Amino acid sequence: MKTYLNCIPCFVQQTLTACRFVTDDESVHESVLRDVLAMLKDIDMHQTPPAMAMRVYRLIRQRTGREDPYQDVKDQTTREVLRLLPDLRRQVRQAADPFTMAVRFAIGGNTIDCGVGHEITLATVGKAFEHALDGPLDGDVGEFQAATRAARSILYVADNAGEIVADRLLIEQLPAGRVTLAVRGRAVLNDATRADAEAAGYDDRIEIIDNGSDAPGTVLQECSDAFRRRFAEADLIIAKGQGNFETLSDAEGNIFFLFKVKCPVISHHTGCPMGHLLVRKNAAAPR
Amino acid sequence: MKTYLNCIPCFVQQTLTACRFVTDDESVHESVLRDVLAMLKDIDMHQTPPAMAMRVYRLIRQRTGREDPYQDVKDQTTREVLRLLPDLRRQVRQAADPFTMAVRFAIGGNTIDCGVGHEITLATVGKAFEHALDGPLDGDVGEFQAATRAARSILYVADNAGEIVADRLLIEQLPAGRVTLAVRGRAVLNDATRADAEAAGYDDRIEIIDNGSDAPGTVLQECSDAFRRRFAEADLIIAKGQGNFETLSDAEGNIFFLFKVKCPVISHHTGCPMGHLLVRKNAAAPR
Repeated sequence: MKTYLNCIPCFVQQTLTACRFVTDDESVHESVLRDVLAMLKDIDMHQTPPAMAMRVYRLIRQRTGREDPYQDVKDQTTREVLRLLPDLRRQVRQAADPFTMAVRFAIGGNTIDCGVGHEITLATVGKAFEHALDGPLDGDVGEFQAATRAARSILYVADNAGEIVADRLLIEQLPAGRVTLAVRGRAVLNDATRADAEAAGYDDRIEIIDNGSDAPGTVLQECSDAFRRRFAEADLIIAKGQGNFETLSDAEGNIFFLFKVKCPVISHHTGCPMGHLLVRKNAAAPR
Repeated sequence: MKTYLNCIPCFVQQTLTACRFVTDDESVHESVLRDVLAMLKDIDMHQTPPAMAMRVYRLIRQRTGREDPYQDVKDQTTREVLRLLPDLRRQVRQAADPFTMAVRFAIGGNTIDCGVGHEITLATVGKAFEHALDGPLDGDVGEFQAATRAARSILYVADNAGEIVADRLLIEQLPAGRVTLAVRGRAVLNDATRADAEAAGYDDRIEIIDNGSDAPGTVLQECSDAFRRRFAEADLIIAKGQGNFETLSDAEGNIFFLFKVKCPVISHHTGCPMGHLLVRKNAAAPR
């Protein structure tokens, strides 16, 4: 997905929000903001929003020297979803349609996002799963479930810390031994890295790979050769979150996107109302 | 008032909003947006927000060739407030404190602003005056009223079209023959010009001057010598709206600002909650 003009003021606002999250030094806020404005004035609108956001967060990292300012938030949300997990799992087991319920909770976890909209609190984490129980879910879950049954290899491209705990519920519904979990190669925002996946309680029955990149999404040309090979070889890719949708919506492959619609640009692009849970097959998927 | 970092994303958003209001040509939206980003990256944060906004609207005017794209909106809101005026005047007359009621309606009219926040509709114009009836009003109206009684000459610096109709109610409470009404020198946003003041029903009992400038506020160094002289000579200045507050809050003189708090930056700067009606004396006022 390309960057829309409406993304530009949002980038500027996110820059300020992120700078303030990372440091109280207003001179850093101002200098990063000016550099981001300079980048934005020449931005290639054909690149995806996360490709641009990656450059913003690199700048913040360079200026502050802080490698992973979101680590505390990530740890807190991980602990909170781990605390909720037994109850969520019980609800999946007791559901008339456990697969759909697991999809709902996996997408519900996608609310735990520091990139778009409001601040995360532990209270909003709990509410996200409550909303996922009966909130509107768009897309063909049956087609998605059939695709998971047909696939010999599934690459599950995770999004955020905390969310990745809830992803366990959906992965438990997938054919055992066929799933590889992919995380970011380096800390960016509250996106899940290998350490966050390990903290989320994945054990050695599932292979975890990282994509070698620090984009808050999957910018394939920024990813490692190893990741790209795994991506190309997978029968099915499950991509979580807006950032992965924005970066992979035009990619080749058999991809299902699972995310919550969290911004007006994505709502417009998908034709799906704000706040809806969405299961969406990529347009370029093979028949 | 200086420009705050939080004003920057708002400038970018306002640029897009204004461009879309003026033309459907997306290439114009993009090109103006890039130029504004280039201006913002080097912005002098000590200038006021309207001084920056003036440059943005000049760019839009240059690119589109449209001198007054807000003329229709201005005419509509003028007609709407003229329609409401007899009833508002009756409420002022019947009020226990007609002066305060007139202040409330004059500030209520300040809701009619295309620069900040949501779009104006004729329904919101009516609601603005309803809210002004009993909404929270901060500031010392008694001190303001005493200042109007003591002044031999009053310069009433207007803000927006439509609003300027409601200003008549307050001007009717001021000592007759002492008030000069000042408007913008050129169309910018929905700010009132001489033509809008005339459409608002001011007759020749009140002198109307323009400030010679196209800023959505009163940037004194952009104003005509004639206006600056009148500004310096006035015993009392009544300045309506956020734009005039942002540009004149540090000016010398005996100034009372009357406006509705419409953005988080102004709320922070004044210590007054969003949505409140505010009467505020300038800090540099003589004792």
